Amino acid sequence: MKKGKSKLRIIPLGGLEQIGMNMTAFEYEDSIIVVDCGLSFPEDDMLGIDLVIPDITYLKDHMDRVKGFFITHGHEDHIGALPYVLKEINVPVYATKLTVGIIEHKLTEHDLLNTTRLKVVKHGQSINLGCFRVEFIKTNHSIADASALAIYSPAGIVVHTGDFKVDYTPVFGDAIDLQRFAEIGKKGVLALMCDSTNAERRGFTMSERTVGRTFDNIFAEHKNTRIIIATFASNVDRVQQIINSAYKYGRKVVVEGRSMVNIITTASELGYLDIPSKTLIDIEQMKNYPDEQMVLITTGSQGESMAALSRMAASIHKKVTIKPGDTVIFSSNPIPGNEKAVSKVINELSMKGANVIFQDTHVSGHACQEEIKLIYTLVQPKYAIPVHGEYRHLKAQAGLAEELGIPKERIFLLSSGDVLELDEEEAKVVDRVHTGAILVDGLGVGDVGNIVLRDRQHLAEDGIMTVVLAMEKHSNQLLSGPDIISRGFVYVRESEDLMEQCRQVAIDALERCREKNVTEWNKIKNTIRDELGDFLWKCTKRRPMMLVIIMEV
Amino acid sequence: MKKGKSKLRIIPLGGLEQIGMNMTAFEYEDSIIVVDCGLSFPEDDMLGIDLVIPDITYLKDHMDRVKGFFITHGHEDHIGALPYVLKEINVPVYATKLTVGIIEHKLTEHDLLNTTRLKVVKHGQSINLGCFRVEFIKTNHSIADASALAIYSPAGIVVHTGDFKVDYTPVFGDAIDLQRFAEIGKKGVLALMCDSTNAERRGFTMSERTVGRTFDNIFAEHKNTRIIIATFASNVDRVQQIINSAYKYGRKVVVEGRSMVNIITTASELGYLDIPSKTLIDIEQMKNYPDEQMVLITTGSQGESMAALSRMAASIHKKVTIKPGDTVIFSSNPIPGNEKAVSKVINELSMKGANVIFQDTHVSGHACQEEIKLIYTLVQPKYAIPVHGEYRHLKAQAGLAEELGIPKERIFLLSSGDVLELDEEEAKVVDRVHTGAILVDGLGVGDVGNIVLRDRQHLAEDGIMTVVLAMEKHSNQLLSGPDIISRGFVYVRESEDLMEQCRQVAIDALERCREKNVTEWNKIKNTIRDELGDFLWKCTKRRPMMLVIIMEV
Repeated sequence: MKKGKSKLRIIPLGGLEQIGMNMTAFEYEDSIIVVDCGLSFPEDDMLGIDLVIPDITYLKDHMDRVKGFFITHGHEDHIGALPYVLKEINVPVYATKLTVGIIEHKLTEHDLLNTTRLKVVKHGQSINLGCFRVEFIKTNHSIADASALAIYSPAGIVVHTGDFKVDYTPVFGDAIDLQRFAEIGKKGVLALMCDSTNAERRGFTMSERTVGRTFDNIFAEHKNTRIIIATFASNVDRVQQIINSAYKYGRKVVVEGRSMVNIITTASELGYLDIPSKTLIDIEQMKNYPDEQMVLITTGSQGESMAALSRMAASIHKKVTIKPGDTVIFSSNPIPGNEKAVSKVINELSMKGANVIFQDTHVSGHACQEEIKLIYTLVQPKYAIPVHGEYRHLKAQAGLAEELGIPKERIFLLSSGDVLELDEEEAKVVDRVHTGAILVDGLGVGDVGNIVLRDRQHLAEDGIMTVVLAMEKHSNQLLSGPDIISRGFVYVRESEDLMEQCRQVAIDALERCREKNVTEWNKIKNTIRDELGDFLWKCTKRRPMMLVIIMEV
Repeated sequence: MKKGKSKLRIIPLGGLEQIGMNMTAFEYEDSIIVVDCGLSFPEDDMLGIDLVIPDITYLKDHMDRVKGFFITHGHEDHIGALPYVLKEINVPVYATKLTVGIIEHKLTEHDLLNTTRLKVVKHGQSINLGCFRVEFIKTNHSIADASALAIYSPAGIVVHTGDFKVDYTPVFGDAIDLQRFAEIGKKGVLALMCDSTNAERRGFTMSERTVGRTFDNIFAEHKNTRIIIATFASNVDRVQQIINSAYKYGRKVVVEGRSMVNIITTASELGYLDIPSKTLIDIEQMKNYPDEQMVLITTGSQGESMAALSRMAASIHKKVTIKPGDTVIFSSNPIPGNEKAVSKVINELSMKGANVIFQDTHVSGHACQEEIKLIYTLVQPKYAIPVHGEYRHLKAQAGLAEELGIPKERIFLLSSGDVLELDEEEAKVVDRVHTGAILVDGLGVGDVGNIVLRDRQHLAEDGIMTVVLAMEKHSNQLLSGPDIISRGFVYVRESEDLMEQCRQVAIDALERCREKNVTEWNKIKNTIRDELGDFLWKCTKRRPMMLVIIMEV
């Protein structure tokens, strides 16, 4: 690739200062390529929202330049927005085999498979697209087939790690291709965009294989009980290790939970899972085997209320009943925000007499400080751009980069929307483009915004009180009402007095309007709303949403 | 105390299978004493609820027998329900000096101080009340003046640890009185009720003093910046250690946050805090000192949105502005459920350039496994009744008790409401009494129940759509409407088409009622509600609450 005179522009469209919604545009002259296309899960205050996707106005405004998507691995925070984004920008999607398999499944659900150009790329292979060449480099992560990307542009090489860890003894396939990182580093790397998720954690993330050893120990110690293991559906290597232990200890395996069944099907079809014959049995056959010959692999390790394990714990699972003596393993850590939900499930399982195990049965999929330092030391980038994480994580990685001798002014803590222009001479944020979060609620994409959310928060806090009355059009004569209806405010049957008082307050307010010759309906509505609101605050210290409706008859 | 023939009844009224709301009744013949009177904080699905208190129907039904409350320490989950309960059962309250000081403050706020009999008890002292003698034993915890109780009844001795840890080198006062535990154990203890909070954690909880050493190190390393430390207001020893480090490094101390100011005032008045003169300054004087001579002690270590530190982080604090270079220490761990809120504050502080420290700056106030084993080994109880914790924690302690040789049938995992009858011969659950959680919302105590909460959850999820119409009383002639008003459902301005379609669906439904000669208004309402609900589900996959109101004109 010959040296160009233009600069490379790196534009994160999501995924910075937050977990999830990973998406970064790389632009050189008239070529744009996009790395990842993820969703994020709603924050606590996004009531009723199903998921959140990045605003891609910038890409739509430069549609003709966008050449394709490169996906680092098959987790929702890297692929989940594809069904929404591909409807608007139909360009090819490049990823490794398992990642493509998972994306295919997702696109099928959205009826988009036939119109999408999905391309399988092998580790070590490169794709030329516009001014760019993109090389896929083998990494390790909590899902198989994860990749780092080396993005070759006329302005220089950018190495993007994706989500990664260093696992010298992975369960499936090779260890991260550290030699290639070193080789590219030796060529000279303009910028390193490195995973920050665990940048606050000291030391090294343990090998996935250590969990397998724990499983073996637990299986050896619990030979006489049924074993139920909850883990992340997408952690194929974890599932492999459970199957290995099951086979070794002569147990049959049942898989339960929709996403778990999906991923195991995809992974074994594509050869990422090696299941000895007759090991996997259907859930209906479970009754033909004694407990001590059974392992259940299930979803629900995050306490998600509708997942299989949560339904078992709450006694609403149709096919599995928790029994005293069952050994239940959480092969996961709670993702921040899920702690209480997980604890609830553990309590419910314990009350049913299950023996719940959650210590030493999980390792992270992200690099800790020593691994991050290793990658920096191999790649030796000119500029450091920490990615993937909340601000605290990005900042922790910036601290590591500085320790490793990268001058502060060459470390960029970008925000989504920042346009970082860089080449060998300099790098700086030159512009900001429009970005944002689009809320998906049911079939609605973007029809719920701040106003609706604020209303939901208000309704959630104190409920609603509706005042309805019918008035004669011109005379303002009261024809019916005021009727008072409340929801989510007080238990009406036990608050009849209060409701009657509210009616009286509304009547008094109307009367006052008449005395003052207030005839404009909006003013009448506001008077009723304010006086009733004040009355309720005084006697309950609550502020339900007030809705005053005047019917014109 | 002479041996009686009756049995002792232990009745937990809250605090089992949950964190918070600690309250246990001890009954012997016509005497009832109550240990602790705590609140709990609302679960995530208790929308809009401020706090939760135990249902004391059982105590009210046996009012004449209730002799008094014994409070183990001054945390909300042990004292918070007192203002509500004392209004109904006005009996004396016994506690140590600092605990009484904190309760006094609380009762003053509820205008109950004059009508309450508060009695200060010293460690080592005993109170005779009805058939009981209650001895206060010194323990260590994350608040000073915590006590275990030895409850002497004619049926035998029960040792109740309260919340505790073993701190051989406490910051203030003596270490836990292990000799007394041993001495009582030697006499023969019927039952041990021991704190389970950390029963899943291996090893020993570190001494509070270790945090002081970390503070000293941080102060030594950050001599040129302002230091802001957030911690639990009630952790007086932690505050003392901050003041010690501040004094040692020549800094002035400002205290910020209402609960922090209250507790420091109470604690220093009562002699639990030793503040060198001229160390504490008013927040208004802060401007007279350079940053490197300042320490701020503040509330907000749990990311509570209205606490001082959160307001500083969000730039809405009136008197403190976070500056680049500020050192901010979280001297706390997030309580489960608060992880995301804490992380948000850390991110905001980091973005303002503050250096946030949260490693090695906190120790727990609860006993880990080795400490629990120590207490069992000193007390040698006949029966084990794990208390304080969710079911998983109680069960973990039960496991420890079994390891220590207590037979399984003598270990009781009680639920709130269980009546455990016991004496030297046997112990068993013989009955259940009514218990429950009373929700407090604003001034309302108990007026929000499941129906209101379900409505709030529904409103929070998808909002509300109100359909109003006016009809002639007898002819069912439509006089006005249907009008459609929604809140929290869609952004109405951008959904005019949908709203018009809804109106049409309602009109069609009315028409269909007329055709079928449906005249009953309730049936008409249901028809509109169902048809409109179905329509909305089909086109949005959402189910807002539907409210159909027919005005009679």
